Amino acid sequence: MTGRIVLGANQYGKAECRVVKVTRASTGSTDGGRHAIEDLNVTTQLRGDFEACHTAGDNSRVVATDTQKNTVYAFAREHGVGTPEDLLLRLTDHFVDGFEWVTGSELSAELFAWERIAVDGQGHDHSFVRSGRETRTTVVTRAGDETTVVSGLRDCTVLKSTGSEFHGFPRDRYTTLQETTDRIMATSVTATWRYTGTDHDYDALYAGIRDLLLSTFATVHSLALQQTVFEMGKAVLERYDEVAEVSLSCPNKHHFLVDLEPFGLDNPGEVFFAADRPYGLIQATVLREATP
Amino acid sequence: MTGRIVLGANQYGKAECRVVKVTRASTGSTDGGRHAIEDLNVTTQLRGDFEACHTAGDNSRVVATDTQKNTVYAFAREHGVGTPEDLLLRLTDHFVDGFEWVTGSELSAELFAWERIAVDGQGHDHSFVRSGRETRTTVVTRAGDETTVVSGLRDCTVLKSTGSEFHGFPRDRYTTLQETTDRIMATSVTATWRYTGTDHDYDALYAGIRDLLLSTFATVHSLALQQTVFEMGKAVLERYDEVAEVSLSCPNKHHFLVDLEPFGLDNPGEVFFAADRPYGLIQATVLREATP
Amino acid sequence: MTGRIVLGANQYGKAECRVVKVTRASTGSTDGGRHAIEDLNVTTQLRGDFEACHTAGDNSRVVATDTQKNTVYAFAREHGVGTPEDLLLRLTDHFVDGFEWVTGSELSAELFAWERIAVDGQGHDHSFVRSGRETRTTVVTRAGDETTVVSGLRDCTVLKSTGSEFHGFPRDRYTTLQETTDRIMATSVTATWRYTGTDHDYDALYAGIRDLLLSTFATVHSLALQQTVFEMGKAVLERYDEVAEVSLSCPNKHHFLVDLEPFGLDNPGEVFFAADRPYGLIQATVLREATP
Amino acid sequence: MTGRIVLGANQYGKAECRVVKVTRASTGSTDGGRHAIEDLNVTTQLRGDFEACHTAGDNSRVVATDTQKNTVYAFAREHGVGTPEDLLLRLTDHFVDGFEWVTGSELSAELFAWERIAVDGQGHDHSFVRSGRETRTTVVTRAGDETTVVSGLRDCTVLKSTGSEFHGFPRDRYTTLQETTDRIMATSVTATWRYTGTDHDYDALYAGIRDLLLSTFATVHSLALQQTVFEMGKAVLERYDEVAEVSLSCPNKHHFLVDLEPFGLDNPGEVFFAADRPYGLIQATVLREATP
Repeated sequence: MTGRIVLGANQYGKAECRVVKVTRASTGSTDGGRHAIEDLNVTTQLRGDFEACHTAGDNSRVVATDTQKNTVYAFAREHGVGTPEDLLLRLTDHFVDGFEWVTGSELSAELFAWERIAVDGQGHDHSFVRSGRETRTTVVTRAGDETTVVSGLRDCTVLKSTGSEFHGFPRDRYTTLQETTDRIMATSVTATWRYTGTDHDYDALYAGIRDLLLSTFATVHSLALQQTVFEMGKAVLERYDEVAEVSLSCPNKHHFLVDLEPFGLDNPGEVFFAADRPYGLIQATVLREATP
Repeated sequence: MTGRIVLGANQYGKAECRVVKVTRASTGSTDGGRHAIEDLNVTTQLRGDFEACHTAGDNSRVVATDTQKNTVYAFAREHGVGTPEDLLLRLTDHFVDGFEWVTGSELSAELFAWERIAVDGQGHDHSFVRSGRETRTTVVTRAGDETTVVSGLRDCTVLKSTGSEFHGFPRDRYTTLQETTDRIMATSVTATWRYTGTDHDYDALYAGIRDLLLSTFATVHSLALQQTVFEMGKAVLERYDEVAEVSLSCPNKHHFLVDLEPFGLDNPGEVFFAADRPYGLIQATVLREATP
Repeated sequence: MTGRIVLGANQYGKAECRVVKVTRASTGSTDGGRHAIEDLNVTTQLRGDFEACHTAGDNSRVVATDTQKNTVYAFAREHGVGTPEDLLLRLTDHFVDGFEWVTGSELSAELFAWERIAVDGQGHDHSFVRSGRETRTTVVTRAGDETTVVSGLRDCTVLKSTGSEFHGFPRDRYTTLQETTDRIMATSVTATWRYTGTDHDYDALYAGIRDLLLSTFATVHSLALQQTVFEMGKAVLERYDEVAEVSLSCPNKHHFLVDLEPFGLDNPGEVFFAADRPYGLIQATVLREATP
Repeated sequence: MTGRIVLGANQYGKAECRVVKVTRASTGSTDGGRHAIEDLNVTTQLRGDFEACHTAGDNSRVVATDTQKNTVYAFAREHGVGTPEDLLLRLTDHFVDGFEWVTGSELSAELFAWERIAVDGQGHDHSFVRSGRETRTTVVTRAGDETTVVSGLRDCTVLKSTGSEFHGFPRDRYTTLQETTDRIMATSVTATWRYTGTDHDYDALYAGIRDLLLSTFATVHSLALQQTVFEMGKAVLERYDEVAEVSLSCPNKHHFLVDLEPFGLDNPGEVFFAADRPYGLIQATVLREATP
């Protein structure tokens, strides 16, 4: 076999730095005032010239993953969090601009949402319950001079109990599935969207895009999960100029109508078995034609 | 070694029957009207005289676990769900009264909460998003003539960013922990409560008890997680005569203040590392003295 | 409702202390010699008079969970591990004898197995691969003067592709299951066995009992999973006088023969779908009649 | 914002078809003979012209995911499994050649290993225990006329208790890590390797490559996990002409030496705390220079 053996693409960093940031309202209060919390899981991955480390164990260019972790925590104190996108953008500048041999990076974060606990109808000052619905995600990538922000969500489980059909598919030797004009459609949405530029009100955009994805899922009368997925992405692109591209990955979480006939019972779309595996898996990207 | 080898305690059944029940609003609407969904995970375990099966492979008394599963689905259609407690009580009667050699049972259920997806500020008729906060649980046990309902919740993650101290503990050779008058206290609450009797408005009780557990966590100024746990149980017993006993299991999800001094930064209760393992684990039952 | 509200059963401690212990072969070698590793997950739970902590936040009797964790690590150094049972017995003595208000404890451990990596057919001196088959478990309980050792295993997945029947079960309105004289039987064994006394060669007993459980599963021609479970427990009691009682919890991991007839194919026990949920769940204890 | 909104990259199929295939030894035996089992988790993803489905709900080109699942099971019966690579190659031909609008595919499989249960020192004919060490993986991709086979493994946890150093890394404001000439190095290896061509003895290659990855991990004296990772990939390329490229993703599972000094104990590399998060994450590809 010809060809010298060489190092190809590589990256490294510290994964899953769990940061909880408490922000205490300013002065004057006797009890410490009203707190806010931010709860993130940050992963750093640096790219650049790390060949000597791989081929000779020379660490003179290896910014230790422990150092990367320390930097994440220190930045949370020095500059606050704000939004996960802004935190990662600041860290990107630090790592790529701070070490000449680091030429790129892929930093990512998960943000976990908390709500204030209700006491006598009011949100408590410093006590919170994790909301647990979807997880917000973001990945900030630097390659050369280009910085890309791709935000999203995962583990957002939705279901519509009607308004979903599936028929007209081709039938071959291995096809046994019956056509249906009324089924449960359920999925756990993983969505990512690429922003144009890096200067945005990320929290407002996140809330708006998430709600739009959900309401589109709700209102589209579906002839296929592919159609719903496409409409969800399209709705985001139509409303948000800041978004260049939306990618969705949606398992089709099958709900099978239980056959109750052996027990002398009908089952007019009422009792379903929620299956685990296997599941359909539908993945698509929706984008503007002009997008490079 | 003396002693004939014999069968001791035993039970069997079908675990994790995933039932999704759709209830369609009554007739007259053109679009199928407003739906409601109930999403449960039901486990059955029967007790009784199953010795011949164990010792001789004689299945004449073994109500097949497949039959148990069928019964769960058929009951969801015939009698609806209502509350998980009521579903399990009906199933208990069926299994224990229906087979003379079945003398007891332990049926359990998890209930997953869904919210309507908001469309133009209104909850959609048939589209839902899983709320994902806590999971509601219930276990109905029959032993002889006695039926016991123990309901609860799990995976309810709460955090208070102040209002928690820990000091005054004994110090021995292995003690290095510093005393603190201000720390983050976080836990994932698993709570169960035993009802007196079996005839209750279980949905209303669940909502009330859950909210009371949370608001008590929020408002108790804590000197130890044990104290918070006790106060949570006590609050439930004080308000709800229907409850005889409350058990809580609470991991102490440690949040460590990050030492930022090496970086020339202070850290006045702002930046924390959320640790995974090990974690404190605090478990206690609170009950009325008269409780047998 | 009558009855003062009081503290009931309670315990607390540090959960999941992950200990990796390296033992280096003795001196004289130039390269550090041959190492052995022990990899454990230790959980401590203390019982006693902790009422003042719960009801008044008085921590003067609360051996901090951090102290308990430190003790686990220090004991691993001072006394070594040996077997998980022996480590927990030493820790039990320390906690219950060392603090007069601690009257009991429940200490548990998981042991993860590692094998030496093979290099040129020889096990390497200090490089290991985690075997990942079953996990060994043990729980040591002290109550008053009584110490109980209950050891076991979990996540031991076994399957027999024939030699399993299931028929003769009662049929009612909800029964649709067909009888079979040849099916796949698969389960993930969770077993625990209570030793008489506390002075044993725990490693040898563990290996012997595990192998006997497996070989009994293999060789019993099964008419019901209950029968197999009983025979597995019985075999252990017949061979090991040191064991007083065996408990088994075995999910029936259903493998359904796929109907290939629509595709013009037969399926004589060849192609199966391995289902996730629901699953049968069979639990039984086997013991000697004289056992209290 | 300019640009018509269009469908970008997309694929769909059935995920996680759990197939267990029993092969019964041929005739003449009275007891059914000696069985073999194969246990796979197969995922199909088809690519091609599915635009009408996404944009108009027209399913006339959507080979139902249920049909894809049926095909997997039918092929296991018609053609057997053999190796996961060969099964996926056959399925690739079927899907891409069988439907003119299907122009590509990405089929993947996990293979779970089972060993015969030992009975009296002999492997049993039809009873097995899941080995649970690493999971074997493969992905077969078709794009146009090109078919690519990328096989690998995951969840292979290895540890060396010495023979690992880490020093000489740059120090900046955020660096606190001490240099070390002796540490535990542990990781859970995820490796994939791309084969040249598609006609190989995949079982033999898998066993050889896995063993070589492990023995290289064991024998390389490591100055950085990056160096070990590179050497592991390089060793495979040096020995196996059939392999064009190796990619490795290795979390650095940190084991921290516990500070026992407060307890009056030394700790000469004996007692470690195995941390969960955060962890280093090292990823690299090693390839032949000539590789396109």
